[in-house]
This record gives sequence, C-alpha cells and structure tokens, in this order.
Amino acid sequence: MTKTTNRNYKDFAVALAREAGEIMHSDFKLGMKKEWKEDNTPVTETDLIINALALKRIKKAYPSHSVIAEEGSDFRENDEFVWVCDPVDGTIPFSHGVPTTVFSIALVQNGESILGVVYDPFSDRLFIAEKGKGAFLNGTRISVSKHDTFENAVIGINWSHRSPVDLLGLFGALKQKKSRGINVGSIIYMGALVAAGEFVAVIYPNRKVHDSASLKILVEEAGGKVTDIWGADQRYDRPTNGIVASNGVLHDQILALIRKTVEHP
Amino acid sequence: MTKTTNRNYKDFAVALAREAGEIMHSDFKLGMKKEWKEDNTPVTETDLIINALALKRIKKAYPSHSVIAEEGSDFRENDEFVWVCDPVDGTIPFSHGVPTTVFSIALVQNGESILGVVYDPFSDRLFIAEKGKGAFLNGTRISVSKHDTFENAVIGINWSHRSPVDLLGLFGALKQKKSRGINVGSIIYMGALVAAGEFVAVIYPNRKVHDSASLKILVEEAGGKVTDIWGADQRYDRPTNGIVASNGVLHDQILALIRKTVEHP
Repeated sequence: MTKTTNRNYKDFAVALAREAGEIMHSDFKLGMKKEWKEDNTPVTETDLIINALALKRIKKAYPSHSVIAEEGSDFRENDEFVWVCDPVDGTIPFSHGVPTTVFSIALVQNGESILGVVYDPFSDRLFIAEKGKGAFLNGTRISVSKHDTFENAVIGINWSHRSPVDLLGLFGALKQKKSRGINVGSIIYMGALVAAGEFVAVIYPNRKVHDSASLKILVEEAGGKVTDIWGADQRYDRPTNGIVASNGVLHDQILALIRKTVEHP
Repeated sequence: MTKTTNRNYKDFAVALAREAGEIMHSDFKLGMKKEWKEDNTPVTETDLIINALALKRIKKAYPSHSVIAEEGSDFRENDEFVWVCDPVDGTIPFSHGVPTTVFSIALVQNGESILGVVYDPFSDRLFIAEKGKGAFLNGTRISVSKHDTFENAVIGINWSHRSPVDLLGLFGALKQKKSRGINVGSIIYMGALVAAGEFVAVIYPNRKVHDSASLKILVEEAGGKVTDIWGADQRYDRPTNGIVASNGVLHDQILALIRKTVEHP
C-alpha cells in the first residue's frame, strides 16, 4: 500500500501513524471490553490489530530492520535499525472512556532515536521529529516552554504497583512545590505536550522502551532534555531506566528531587 | 434566545450546556494563555465568557433562583432553588492542550441536587439526570459498573497543595491495592464516567460545590453512591466536605481507606 524506500522513513512512519490512528479513532467507544494481560497491564482488540498492522508494514518495507512493539515484536540482536512502536499508548484511558491516547513510533539506529512520529487521532495532532531537523506539530515547528519554577508547572507523572520504583514520595514533593501533577494515562500523549510547550515535564519509571523512544527525539528536537530517571543517557532499543522528558529548564531540579525522594532499586 | 418556563428545567439546562460547549470547543487550542488567579487556581477567557453566559441565561429565565458559579455567583441565602455551575471543569487540562473538560450545571432545591447536566463537547457526550428518572448519556440510560475489587479499578483522584486535606497516603494505598489512579484534571469529567460504568469512583477533597453538585445526582441516578469524603450526606448549595462518587459496590471500602489514610482536619 505505502511504497517506500530506505530513504523516506518519515513518510513511511507518518502513513502508518495515520492508518493506525484511523483504526484507533473508529474503535473508540464506551463499554469497551476491559481485559488485562497476565502481567496485569490492559489490552484491547485495537492494540492487537494496530500492533499486527505495524509489524506487517515494517517487515514488508524494511525486512532488515527489527521491531519492538508492545503487543509483539520481531527483534534480532545486532540489527542496526529498530522500529519501536506503541500501538495504543494509553490503553487504560482508551478502554475506560477517555480519548487521551496516541499511536507512537520511533526509528532507532544503533540505540539512538533518530525519528519519532506520534499521532493523536482524536485531536488530529501529528507530531514529527527527525534528528537535527526540529520538532513539528501538523507542520508547524514547536518548542518547549520556558516555565522555570515548580509552581504551577503541569507535570505528567505515571507509575503503578508494577513499576520498578515507587514515585509516591516524588509526587508528594511536587505537590508541596505547587506543581500540578496530571496523569491522563499516556506518557507519550503528555510527553508530546512537553514538546509543544504545554506540559513542563513527564516522569515515568517503567522499563518499556516503546513508552519513551519517540519522546526522546521529539522533546529534544523541541529544545528540551530527555534522560532516564537518574539523569543518564540510554539506548532506546532495549529496556530503559524510565524517562524524564522536560523543557530542559527544570530538568536538573527534577532529577535532584527524584534522587531525594525515590529509593534506588 | 431560549424560551423557558419554570417547568422545563431540563430543557433549559441542556440548551445552556450545548451553547457553553460550543464556546468551549471552538476556544480550545494549544498555546492558550496560562493565567492563575490570586487563589492560585487557573482561569481562561473561556471560563469567564461561559460563566457570564450562564449567569445571564439563568437570571433571565429564573429571576427568583440563585446562582453559584465558579467565576462569579448571584447568591441569596434562603432561595429555594440554586443553580450550581462550573463553566469549564478542568481548566488546567483545557489550558494545557488536553480536552478532558466539561460544562456542568445542577439545579439544587433546598440543598438537594434534583437535576444534573454535564456536557463534554469534544466527545459530544451529554449526560442528564433528574431526580427519580435515571441517568442518561445522549439519550441512552446508563448505569455504574459492578466492579467489586480494588484491583484494576480505575479511580479518578484529584487534590492539590491547596486542598483542605492531603490524599497522598490514600493515593499510595490505592496503588498498593492495584487500583489505577487517573487524574485527567476534571472531577466531573471522570465522575460522569463513573455514572457511565467506566470509572469505578472519583475522590475529591475540595470544598467547591460546583465541582460536585451535578455528580451527586448523575452518579446516584446511575445506581451509584455519593457522599462527602467522610461518608456523610451534605447540601449542594454551599461549600462541601469534598466528594466520593462511586459505583456503590466499593463505596464503604473507599471510605474506610480514607479514614485510615487521611488526617481529619
């Protein structure tokens, strides 16, 4: 369907994102079946359908590339290029009546995220970032906010009983500093809004790379900063140490607050 | 514009909700001016415009009724009927790129909520409940979920540094019980989804009655239970002791958890 060569990664990812977004949008309804996987994370038919679509499209277009996707991967150690995909980021809101859900895909070369495409079909927002070329929302260049205090900073933060570390102390400390902790249930939805200058940061401790690979490049190309939750850089083609994606201005202060409030496992 | 008599409160409220929703929908955009009031809560032009509209419409249709609205009221002690309105519930998400925002209005008679209308213009969801007549979403009867354990229960919870009590301990306890704490930034948005059987409960400690008057009747007419955060009933035409609106099944267990984890002020 989509004709591609190795050179137009961006066009390929955008076409896939729009195709996935259409499915997501038309599948969204109240009363969806609420299923939970064995690892206690939720899944819907839509996750599975979009995941299968992504695998099929990538395998056909780029047979030498690996794929890491939430509901099923095709991964070969040592592949130079890895597509990292979250078919429905925000499955909990999606399956509980809240359309704060996106499709996310990143192209990772030797561990470095070089292309990120995020699509929110409900607000028709297409975010694109390529290495060295800036970050764009529906064709318009975007940049992070200049907000420089915790007070009234809107910060997306998401963890669960399954997370490798507990962010409760951090969450309390952010509230004491008068930040506004929000969790719409999708880290990539909120992270894209960091790139767009709306949110100041997102903080997420989980190891799943499909929740962070696109944000790494999207937020950095928008002028922000992205590290793991301890402040280190990391590869985006294997399990991560979580992600802090911020406007840059508050990054070091957020990391300091994490070190102060979160027990290192 | 809207012709009303004292008898068609519902039609009046629905017409106002749709009018307000149109404004909200057309005003929503990224890059909105982020203003904070002296009490450190946010406000946008849209809040003010819709608030003025509600005041004007109510005063004209029901001059003997009082109005309590977030951005300006017209309240006389001892009025039998009070319209309680939140022009934009969820101003923080609304002004930060997240359309999880609703218009909410309730008619309160001698302290009792007898009509609730909530409109989400982004998903075009109109929720209506009248005393003794059930709860409806876009004309279809809705009811709360039967979910009976904390595990995987999606629970909306929202408090800030300004709240009269600190829910951090409760939030941590819910996570330990494997509930999914979500905060899309609007209690009424999430509470309407309790009525629709998607969320299991919402918990909100703040005293502002415009954040709870419509939910009192909407969730109860959908078969759920609504109390203040200590489990008592309360009037909905004056400051509240917060709100717990649940599917009923888990209500007492939530109240017990609150008593265990929240310091009574």
